[in-house]
Amino acid sequence: MTEENQGVTETRKIIRYEGNSYSRVEDSVVAETPLTIMLNDQELATIVCSPYAQKELVVGFLAGEGLIRTPSDLKEYFHREKQEVVWVETDLPIQEQQENMLRRNFASCCGKGRPTFYFRNDASQIKPISGETRFSVRQVLDLIRQLDEGSDTFRRTGGVHSAGLASTEGIIAKYEDIGRHNALDRILGHVLLNDVPTTNKAVLLSGRISSEMLIKAARIGTPVVVSRSAPTGLAIDLAEDLNITVVGFARGDRMNIYCHEERITM
Amino acid sequence: MTEENQGVTETRKIIRYEGNSYSRVEDSVVAETPLTIMLNDQELATIVCSPYAQKELVVGFLAGEGLIRTPSDLKEYFHREKQEVVWVETDLPIQEQQENMLRRNFASCCGKGRPTFYFRNDASQIKPISGETRFSVRQVLDLIRQLDEGSDTFRRTGGVHSAGLASTEGIIAKYEDIGRHNALDRILGHVLLNDVPTTNKAVLLSGRISSEMLIKAARIGTPVVVSRSAPTGLAIDLAEDLNITVVGFARGDRMNIYCHEERITM
Repeated sequence: MTEENQGVTETRKIIRYEGNSYSRVEDSVVAETPLTIMLNDQELATIVCSPYAQKELVVGFLAGEGLIRTPSDLKEYFHREKQEVVWVETDLPIQEQQENMLRRNFASCCGKGRPTFYFRNDASQIKPISGETRFSVRQVLDLIRQLDEGSDTFRRTGGVHSAGLASTEGIIAKYEDIGRHNALDRILGHVLLNDVPTTNKAVLLSGRISSEMLIKAARIGTPVVVSRSAPTGLAIDLAEDLNITVVGFARGDRMNIYCHEERITM
Repeated sequence: MTEENQGVTETRKIIRYEGNSYSRVEDSVVAETPLTIMLNDQELATIVCSPYAQKELVVGFLAGEGLIRTPSDLKEYFHREKQEVVWVETDLPIQEQQENMLRRNFASCCGKGRPTFYFRNDASQIKPISGETRFSVRQVLDLIRQLDEGSDTFRRTGGVHSAGLASTEGIIAKYEDIGRHNALDRILGHVLLNDVPTTNKAVLLSGRISSEMLIKAARIGTPVVVSRSAPTGLAIDLAEDLNITVVGFARGDRMNIYCHEERITM
């Protein structure tokens, strides 16, 4: 089945200008669709996303916001495709978590005088990572090269980000999306739906490591996060506190290690 | 004043691995901070952003969500920097808009059988663009080159996106941020705070044109949107309906024109 058939890309008639002349051609563009999550009959959120692997995305989104912990917390899951709506039911006492979703945590942490978790659910739910698995420099560079190589849609449309989950042996799961956050939410959903151990794995990212991405990686539970792009200062601060190794600009024969270097061996 | 002093970048001690050897160096990383908006004493949203030009960002965010139309709708604006909280007061009857913020619009549009605005405030507030200003291929490529050239923080940290507002003469305003959406929200805030006419201008973007970015550009009111990266299928559909010209992959001597080509001249 081609990506076009899956609905991940679409065809458009465009005008291509190049080197002082132009032509009318058909070109692939990346598809984008809204997906609305109804939680216990209430409208929770609308995510704009690439239209595939929606269950991984919804489970990852709910877990990423602290509203469920495992897929067994879901009593019902129904995707009404025509409307692009997912109906989810749970009998968890999630009222407090739902009220705290995206609510600011104003408490300062540990007297360090620097910003920490800014959302309440993150502050109450995320703990430091205990995994001590090591990755060699060569393994890290090989893995990020594999993440790039596999990205057919990215090569064809220039419009998607990739997120992967890898052991020292290779990539175990990989998702693409028009949004960085959605791709990583799918990894979290995949880990939960398939009960994948993560303390001996690394998260791989094509895009930047913002604090939001670092927090999602902490919920996934990997001790190592690698990107071919840059981390932010706040993401590095959070990673130091959460005992997560951050590697950025991993491409070709180079990389920067920003914190917890002990997990990267020469 | 340097960017370091403004707080847009920070310094970190890192390990740089390159060509089979490593060194401990100081490197610049892009700063990231949470900013919480309190609207009429209620917590509205927390944005994670680059810590500068916060008033443009807040005004652009509120206008982008359809909660204000002009800066005069704001009766009070107070930025409590220590907490990174902005207190905003308005006496507009915005209850309905606030309830509809990020709420899904399930109505289908015009019988076209394709997705349109997915949020209610967008569907009720955004109208097609009337500007007929033309940009030559050369002007478009010059403008996107200027957007790239000016991005000092991007070059130093690899961690920010740029958004610009340009006439046929050159770039009028430019903002950077760790998030694409924040950079463009600042352009909207700048336009409103400085009462800048926009029907004869173009929006320039370093990152992808997703539907959310296209909708923000429609609120800014420019008839042309140019990116050095890719548009999504949904963004192109919305642009066709809103009479907005979309140009993607504009770099070097090439570009793709996705719709409303009549505004791009050879």
